[in-house]
Amino acid sequence: MRILGIDPGTINLGYGVVEGEEEIHMVDLGVISLSPRTSMEERLGALYDELSKIIASYKPNEVAIEEPFVGHNVASAFAIGRAQAIAILAAVKQGLPVYYYSPTQVKQQVTSYGRSDKQQVQEMVKLQLHLPQLPKPSDAADALAIAICHFQQSLFNKRLNE
Amino acid sequence: MRILGIDPGTINLGYGVVEGEEEIHMVDLGVISLSPRTSMEERLGALYDELSKIIASYKPNEVAIEEPFVGHNVASAFAIGRAQAIAILAAVKQGLPVYYYSPTQVKQQVTSYGRSDKQQVQEMVKLQLHLPQLPKPSDAADALAIAICHFQQSLFNKRLNE
Repeated sequence: MRILGIDPGTINLGYGVVEGEEEIHMVDLGVISLSPRTSMEERLGALYDELSKIIASYKPNEVAIEEPFVGHNVASAFAIGRAQAIAILAAVKQGLPVYYYSPTQVKQQVTSYGRSDKQQVQEMVKLQLHLPQLPKPSDAADALAIAICHFQQSLFNKRLNE
Repeated sequence: MRILGIDPGTINLGYGVVEGEEEIHMVDLGVISLSPRTSMEERLGALYDELSKIIASYKPNEVAIEEPFVGHNVASAFAIGRAQAIAILAAVKQGLPVYYYSPTQVKQQVTSYGRSDKQQVQEMVKLQLHLPQLPKPSDAADALAIAICHFQQSLFNKRLNE
């Protein structure tokens, strides 16, 4: 199974691709960066095109996206919501199922602790994917964590059904 | 100038098309209704396809969308934000400029009063478009009000520049 993890944002959208059945390894990671000086409309259009290309080229079986949550900054929650909608559309247009995980679920699943910090999450991503160093940049590392979270959840569900 | 007004929502998305230079008339109005029993992914995909068809068939010059605002229901604000993102993408993909208006701006512009109720807005929409009766359904009436708001704003800007 190949999973595309997405950390949505309309300036930097991180993505990470992992693959495996019982054990997983990293296929690739990256960030779609859009200039904050371009209009929001242009950014959403570019985001859709770039993500569609990534999905077409890596051909994941499933897509996992971080759910936007409402923190103290409502404007940024809206921006994440917009990026999420574009990512969902890009996945749906290529017939892929989409799964959602909150930041707390990702931390809980990847480090077995819901309040771990970014550094701890990245350490676990490095360990689980047998990477030589911490994954970078951080938006891409977050996307890998989301993909790992979905992999573990799927494995858990699969074992539960067996 | 032909304007497509959009009242975004992921269950019911209202649209209204108006046209004119100094005076305007209504071209059409309608609602894209999506079953709440289908998944959010399916709804976003269907919304994009339907809206793209509407834009291609009515060929508006500009698109006006109601800005989501954060009321007491954050979940519905997110849903509106998602629908808005899909509408923006559909417009951008056909090369159209997008303009945003808050509910208060729409009321202010259409009825000259920011706190008017739905009924008053619909009465003014009927009057300005010389409709034989109140526009229905209400989501489509709201979309017409957004289109009228943008028309008046454009006319105002044009006169200011002359």
